[in-house]
Amino acid sequence: MIIVNNIDEMHDLSNKWRQDGKSIGLVPTMGYLHEGHLSLINAARGENDIVVTSIFVNPSQFGPNEDFERYPRDMEADSAACELAGVDVIFAPDAQEMYPEGYTTYVEPGAIGQRLCGVTRPIHFRGVCTVVLKLFNIIQPLNAYFGQKDAQQYLILKRMVADLNLDINLHRMPIIREADGLAKSSRNVYLTPEQREQATMLFAAVKKAEQLYRAGERDSATILAAMSDELAKASLAKVDYLQIVETDNLLPVQHIDREVLVAMAVYFGSTRLIDNTILG
Amino acid sequence: MIIVNNIDEMHDLSNKWRQDGKSIGLVPTMGYLHEGHLSLINAARGENDIVVTSIFVNPSQFGPNEDFERYPRDMEADSAACELAGVDVIFAPDAQEMYPEGYTTYVEPGAIGQRLCGVTRPIHFRGVCTVVLKLFNIIQPLNAYFGQKDAQQYLILKRMVADLNLDINLHRMPIIREADGLAKSSRNVYLTPEQREQATMLFAAVKKAEQLYRAGERDSATILAAMSDELAKASLAKVDYLQIVETDNLLPVQHIDREVLVAMAVYFGSTRLIDNTILG
Repeated sequence: MIIVNNIDEMHDLSNKWRQDGKSIGLVPTMGYLHEGHLSLINAARGENDIVVTSIFVNPSQFGPNEDFERYPRDMEADSAACELAGVDVIFAPDAQEMYPEGYTTYVEPGAIGQRLCGVTRPIHFRGVCTVVLKLFNIIQPLNAYFGQKDAQQYLILKRMVADLNLDINLHRMPIIREADGLAKSSRNVYLTPEQREQATMLFAAVKKAEQLYRAGERDSATILAAMSDELAKASLAKVDYLQIVETDNLLPVQHIDREVLVAMAVYFGSTRLIDNTILG
Repeated sequence: MIIVNNIDEMHDLSNKWRQDGKSIGLVPTMGYLHEGHLSLINAARGENDIVVTSIFVNPSQFGPNEDFERYPRDMEADSAACELAGVDVIFAPDAQEMYPEGYTTYVEPGAIGQRLCGVTRPIHFRGVCTVVLKLFNIIQPLNAYFGQKDAQQYLILKRMVADLNLDINLHRMPIIREADGLAKSSRNVYLTPEQREQATMLFAAVKKAEQLYRAGERDSATILAAMSDELAKASLAKVDYLQIVETDNLLPVQHIDREVLVAMAVYFGSTRLIDNTILG
């Protein structure tokens, strides 16, 4: 395994592999890898000649009052985990390499980037689309792997790939959870013990939605009310949003007669957790 | 020569050529081809195995009160001219093919897209960047050719290619002019005979700037004043802007001690003409 920090060097490697007819699988991450990331790497390892994991805490997807500075980083542990998982290349540029002086071009995902998480994080998905497009152009993957936990991110990137006519297959991998159901996230380390305990209520709400749907319930308001009851059990939680939306345009759905995304974001103090499930 | 209207078909052709190691030269146009376009095609023909000319009047780069509907179109004449010039493929999708229902992703060039022409045409360069990136992804050129007449467009696209880490060489080809100096443009057909006669004053202003610069003048205000005097001779002209700016950020320059773009846009009635030169 090698670690590449330089865009030109990464680009040259990718060009060579592509010319040799080798398939490249990309797992874009912000590092501090957990089993969720490793499930993406394992999927990539099974389906591609070359596996590249990018590790880049992307400043353009953090708002001015968000946790860019304190976002957890541990390159040593990440390298060891990637090596063990069979990654060929870690691409780990710094911010100056990705956004040099005079940088000015951004990819705007449009209205779907302003819904759900986009309400409290208005520039987040612009940053995500921009950095992922840059990574796609630098690394030229045939396949790219994303986690279902970031459901809106995946749907927006799928839209970007279609809209910009990119020849890349996106793969959405299931949410990986802790033993008690909390979705694995690099941000879970921010939680106090008490918050951590209450954070299982997000999964409780997800399960409640799935139970009701399996039992035949199709009214969004009924499902959302039952989920709210679950979340209310977490006294430290402040719900940012809890919605049932269409998977293509992320607009609210009243009656569930097609595939929908059930998604939520919940604050514990300044820590913001997300969880979701797809029904239909 | 073949004409391709379908994105997937074009993409398959490009993929095959790239796999065969063939270089593709792209000349993106809105059709109604004139000698300016043909000079780009000739350059592409000399430097690539395959030459693709796209013909697409891109709705996303026209503002609501601009000339999208009446922009001149003549596919028959364009095909004949491309065939004669040795083009291999005309890629001519329709708007529905390029912007299907639910389309939402746009490439934003940032501040340099809001200067010069961007003041009166605020969404223009967003549309240009978006369509050109789509064409790049569909056609996968090694080289792409643009005219110096659209000086701001070229500088913005060069910035986009660098920012988004695209592996494409952009070529800027000289302005091609009518015998009396008017820069060739598909929009020249809009001019009345009287406007057409006075439109030569744009080139007179360009020449004046070049003369003064050659004679040692380095003060922008002095050069701009002399250019204004030339433009004032066109009684039907209304100047949109006349500026001397840095070529990287398009901000005004007072003293010319580096490469600058001298650029103007002038209205004759509702017809808007542009011209420019680079000094330094």
